[in-house]
This record gives sequence, C-alpha cells and structure tokens, in this order.
Amino acid sequence: MTTHENGQTDQAGQTERPVALTATANNKGVDAAVAAARRVIASLLHAGDGSSAEMARIAEQLNAVADHLDQHAPAVEERMVDMWKGEGVTRHDPVTGPENAIAPPLPLAGRDDGSIEGVVVLGMPYQGPPGCVHGGVSALLLDHTLGVANHWAGVSGMTAELTLRYHRPTPLFEPLTVTGRQVSVDGRKIRTTGTISAGGKVCVSAEGLFIAKHLPRPR
Amino acid sequence: MTTHENGQTDQAGQTERPVALTATANNKGVDAAVAAARRVIASLLHAGDGSSAEMARIAEQLNAVADHLDQHAPAVEERMVDMWKGEGVTRHDPVTGPENAIAPPLPLAGRDDGSIEGVVVLGMPYQGPPGCVHGGVSALLLDHTLGVANHWAGVSGMTAELTLRYHRPTPLFEPLTVTGRQVSVDGRKIRTTGTISAGGKVCVSAEGLFIAKHLPRPR
Repeated sequence: MTTHENGQTDQAGQTERPVALTATANNKGVDAAVAAARRVIASLLHAGDGSSAEMARIAEQLNAVADHLDQHAPAVEERMVDMWKGEGVTRHDPVTGPENAIAPPLPLAGRDDGSIEGVVVLGMPYQGPPGCVHGGVSALLLDHTLGVANHWAGVSGMTAELTLRYHRPTPLFEPLTVTGRQVSVDGRKIRTTGTISAGGKVCVSAEGLFIAKHLPRPR
Repeated sequence: MTTHENGQTDQAGQTERPVALTATANNKGVDAAVAAARRVIASLLHAGDGSSAEMARIAEQLNAVADHLDQHAPAVEERMVDMWKGEGVTRHDPVTGPENAIAPPLPLAGRDDGSIEGVVVLGMPYQGPPGCVHGGVSALLLDHTLGVANHWAGVSGMTAELTLRYHRPTPLFEPLTVTGRQVSVDGRKIRTTGTISAGGKVCVSAEGLFIAKHLPRPR
C-alpha cells in the first residue's frame, strides 16, 4: 500500500502532467546499495550453477555485507516505526520501494482522468513459464497498483478479494504498461480495476474489492 | 510452474511420507551465494537510510560481485535452455527456487491424499500493511502452489483465472502454512484451490482455473 498525501489536491489542480505516486530512487545511500543488490539477484540467476564464477567467495562477500549491515541496523520495532512515519509514499514495499531489492521497482504516476500508470521491464528473476512473467508476479504488481489507484482517487483500504484473468503470456525483457483505476465506492466497499499490457495488448486484467479500513501503523 | 517427474509414481506408491516437490538448496555453489543474497536484501531493508552502515562502499562491493558474475555468465539464451532442461523441479522460480534470491523460498511436499503443503516464515521484504504480508505476495505464493498441486495431481497447465479472498491479515515473522489441491479436471479446464494459514486460521484462500497447455521450453 502506498499513501499519496497530495492526491486529491493534485487531481483538483487539473494539471496535465502525471503526478508521481511512488518514491523515486536517490542513486545514493541505501537506494544505490539496493540497486546494486538487484543486479546481484539477476546476475546470480543468469550465472547459475554451471558458471565458473567463484561462488564460495561471493557467498562470503555477501554474508560479510549482511553482517556489516546488521551490526549497524536499528531494532526491528524501531525500524518499523520509522518506515511507516508520515503519510507519504512508502520506500520499502516489494513493488515500488527503492529500499526493497525484491521490487523491480515499478514507478506509478497519476493522471487527471483518475487513472494511474507505470512502465516496467522484468527480467529473469520474475519468470514463470519459459520467457514469460510469473502469473503470481503479475498478481503482485496488480494488487499493489490497484491499492495505489485507490489512494490517488482519495479513498483506499485493504484487499478483500482480487480476481486476475490471464489473457495471453506476459513477456519478460519487454516494456510492460501497468494501469489502475478506481471504479466505484459504495459505503466501505471500493471496486478497482487494472491491467498489464505489452505491445498494446492486454496480457492480464484484475478486478479488486477493497474495504475502506487500515491497520494501525507501528508507533 | 514446477514439474515433478515422479509425482504419479510416488502417489501410486502409497507412501506415508510427504514427497518433496520443490528443489532443495545445496548449501554450496550458487545456492549458498543466493542464500547470502537473501540476507543482503533483508539487511538492507532493516538498515534503511538512517543506518550508519557504509552504504557507498556496500554499493561498490555489490556492483563488483555483479560484474564478476556477469563476466562468467553464459548468454541469456544459453542459460534459458539450461534452466528449462529435464522435466524435474525448477531451481529458478521466484517462489521455491534456490537459485532465485527473490524466492523466500517456499518448500512444498505432496501427500497421498492429493494435497500439497509447505511452511514458510516471511520477513520485512514481503511486507504490505504494517507488520503483515503484502496481499500480492500471498497471491504469488498461492498461484505457484496451485500450479505445483496440479503437477502433483498429474495434469497441469497455465493460469487462466485466479481469485483470492483475504479473510484476515497474514502476519510477518510467523510460520505460515501454504496448501494446494486439485479439485477437478474437465476437458482442458483444471480447477484448483489453496490457502495460507497462520496459527490454524485461514488468512487467504485461492481458487484457480488452469488450462491444460504449456508454452514450449527454450531449446
């Protein structure tokens, strides 16, 4: 889930330019280290066990990096409070977060017409069928995008039901356009839809039912 | 998707012991390096930008590891052929794969009654709402588990439709039980269900419609 503090204001402002709804990587500090970690994830998978790379030495080096980070990390509880501070966009989620190496990351921007959109290219770590994006990875991207679309529309909540339809294989290594749009709000029930497209054709579509409530943030 | 070459034989054998349906990490070679990479992903997120860790040096070290791996990696096409060889379990997928640092990984085993099951603990990189598993991550785990359940049952295919129902928040840092079971096969239509539970209570349930076809493997 991502909270955009100025969503409604921006929409009312009738600006023509899409408004960024996700955190932008700083290219320094933890963001730069996470970008490098994404390279390591992909490169390990590209290399595989047949590679002549010095895997034992790499394991040692990576464990040393993790040890160093753990020695300088705050307690989990403290970090949880810190990462949930403010009402701005999250930096830690597994879809858009510049501090999370699992996130591709997917940047999302909101438009005046109420829709949101982002473009991402997914590599080998996100593979399901040969050469294609894993159906569950598409579900992950769409669940998150529908949540951000709700924030952009001004009423958001938690996923109660999500239905995904797979129309054609979603290709790896090609630009994918991910969209989302809030369709209706009826009491606490929010309905939201979204798609993943490649080359102008819809590969996956999603319909979500969300309930307008939120878990308390750690304090 | 994971293929288990001996699924039917094992089932017919009426063994009481669950049969492993996913690859087991070797604790050496690329598997050990990937396990260390998982530690780096989690530790970077635990540390965050407020940490006093030397992030610039860490970025340099991780980029050097990626450079070394890339210098020793086969061409992407060659690697794709290699990773899809045989009909055994996959080692590269983003849910169970010991060679994929994005995978938690989730181990899955099949039982005589046709069900499959696995237990996993998810940490901060898989967070959605505060302290809870991201709804899209639950979808990723369940889509994959339903696919493996189809292989265990002997007839598998590609996801056509997946519906997820979120009954209660799924906790981070606690053992989650993930289950799957093929319900019916009607021509090429396969129906499969699954759940994620914590402390004996179902947090997420899934229903999937799969079509009995497969994309060609790279050769």
